Amino acid sequence: MDIIFREARRDDLSRVVELIADDAVAARRAGTFGAAHVRGFEAIQASPDNDLVVAVRDGGSGDGEVIGCMQLTYIPGISRNGAGRLLVEAVRVDAALRGQGIGRLLMEHAHERGRARGCVLAQLTSDKQRPDAHRFYRSLGYQQSHEGFKLPLERG
Amino acid sequence: MDIIFREARRDDLSRVVELIADDAVAARRAGTFGAAHVRGFEAIQASPDNDLVVAVRDGGSGDGEVIGCMQLTYIPGISRNGAGRLLVEAVRVDAALRGQGIGRLLMEHAHERGRARGCVLAQLTSDKQRPDAHRFYRSLGYQQSHEGFKLPLERG
Repeated sequence: MDIIFREARRDDLSRVVELIADDAVAARRAGTFGAAHVRGFEAIQASPDNDLVVAVRDGGSGDGEVIGCMQLTYIPGISRNGAGRLLVEAVRVDAALRGQGIGRLLMEHAHERGRARGCVLAQLTSDKQRPDAHRFYRSLGYQQSHEGFKLPLERG
Repeated sequence: MDIIFREARRDDLSRVVELIADDAVAARRAGTFGAAHVRGFEAIQASPDNDLVVAVRDGGSGDGEVIGCMQLTYIPGISRNGAGRLLVEAVRVDAALRGQGIGRLLMEHAHERGRARGCVLAQLTSDKQRPDAHRFYRSLGYQQSHEGFKLPLERG
């Protein structure tokens, strides 16, 4: 299978939302594709520090089927001797195509983009309900060194 | 104690590096204050999506002693119905002043800034070697729902 990676376009967005929702953990919080997702997409496009990347099958023209996605955020910092960080979020591979190494290619591509942006550390969090994902990230060399915390921000 | 919060200035930077390093977990990876920290600071200042915030004591003029710091990153997204996220990193309070509620004020200020930027979720990770920090974040209402992973990115 030939796979290329490119930044997502507006007409990929409904498919990306579908990929993000096609997951036991995420489904209950994904929402149906709509204006809120478009606003999120436009904000990513407007940000110099964020890329929404898709994996495309048979993508010579870049117009093949979208089979995976991820969001990358490049974060400057003071900690760790001024290190830039790559934050990886919303990593998904089409459920019908898992176990074929596509996730690994996606993550390697994430790391390439991070290095190109001067990042010396990659970081991500994964829901405690996803032991398979944890094994996958450990297999890529990630250290499972941190606890991840989330808090909804109520309107003030 | 009167405390104000403001964005860090260049002349706060050596103190911020000192705060970040004054910690059993971070000390071994902090590095001595130098050019790499200045580059990190300049990159934060240049980014519309990042704030380095300091807590200042007796700060009517904004020139009091820096007693705490944190970095905030505002991240647009597709997941969770297009939610904007607030990422909080490098939270530190002067070791001599811990246990007085300064960390709580710092985090409440982080959440205010996040809401002002349209973020509906705050997230952070904390080293598994910091059980006191975990208790603190839980006391603020954070759910300890995720595993946090880190990977150094070798030069390609």
